[in-house]
Amino acid sequence: MIQPFDDVYFMKKALQEAEFAFDKGEVPVGAIVVLKNQIIARAHNLTETLNDVTAHAEMQAFTAAADFIGGKYLKDCVLYVTLEPCQMCAGASYWAQLGKIVYGASEPERGFRNLGTKLHPKTEIVAGILENDCAQILKRFFIQKRNLN
Amino acid sequence: MIQPFDDVYFMKKALQEAEFAFDKGEVPVGAIVVLKNQIIARAHNLTETLNDVTAHAEMQAFTAAADFIGGKYLKDCVLYVTLEPCQMCAGASYWAQLGKIVYGASEPERGFRNLGTKLHPKTEIVAGILENDCAQILKRFFIQKRNLN
Repeated sequence: MIQPFDDVYFMKKALQEAEFAFDKGEVPVGAIVVLKNQIIARAHNLTETLNDVTAHAEMQAFTAAADFIGGKYLKDCVLYVTLEPCQMCAGASYWAQLGKIVYGASEPERGFRNLGTKLHPKTEIVAGILENDCAQILKRFFIQKRNLN
Repeated sequence: MIQPFDDVYFMKKALQEAEFAFDKGEVPVGAIVVLKNQIIARAHNLTETLNDVTAHAEMQAFTAAADFIGGKYLKDCVLYVTLEPCQMCAGASYWAQLGKIVYGASEPERGFRNLGTKLHPKTEIVAGILENDCAQILKRFFIQKRNLN
């Protein structure tokens, strides 16, 4: 059976958000939240635009998803994010009791895994979806930034 | 020399914010951000009102403080918060490069200390300011809530 709505399909949507961030001069990370194969939130990093460290893609996506649902818990939701979440975003997912996190590129230094951030016991993790594409857009951004300075 | 602007003075302001949360039926946690003895942000937990797990007092205070300063880094700022920050809020303080965290009551289960959340290397920590008052308002809230249900 053809399954058009798989992890790759949704990660491509998150990558589109990362491209929007790139075009704004933001570190290109994108996120979407999916509920029953429906995208209920889309967001990209806006920390520079908003002058606000809390404006990571995931945080905005959680806020938007909760607003859509009309409740703060995201138990049946899947977060697709191009980069491994940080402590802040993983910590937010704990409070939201998020169903699943699917991420693309790893972040060994500031990602939640190596830093040991505690997730909600029911949150599943899938890593490495479109990993190369998710990492490449970040590399492209930092190379461009270095060349401009 | 009399020092009117000490940790107790500012924690009382954070406690006032916790009282505002209490009156709204929110878990009573309050926070302020201080820059050079000036309060530049005040906030209290609004997770129920906003249906949003990211609306912890500290997160809102960081956003408001950065807005006041016009920059996202809070290197010279002190966060006063009635309860030990969670992973999410401590993680946000890392990105903000916050100068100092002063908290009242400890949170052994969900607080950042026992969960080992990484702070910015320059962030100082002071614990236990008005600890009893900060804990009592939480106890009062949960007793009242239990009696209502």
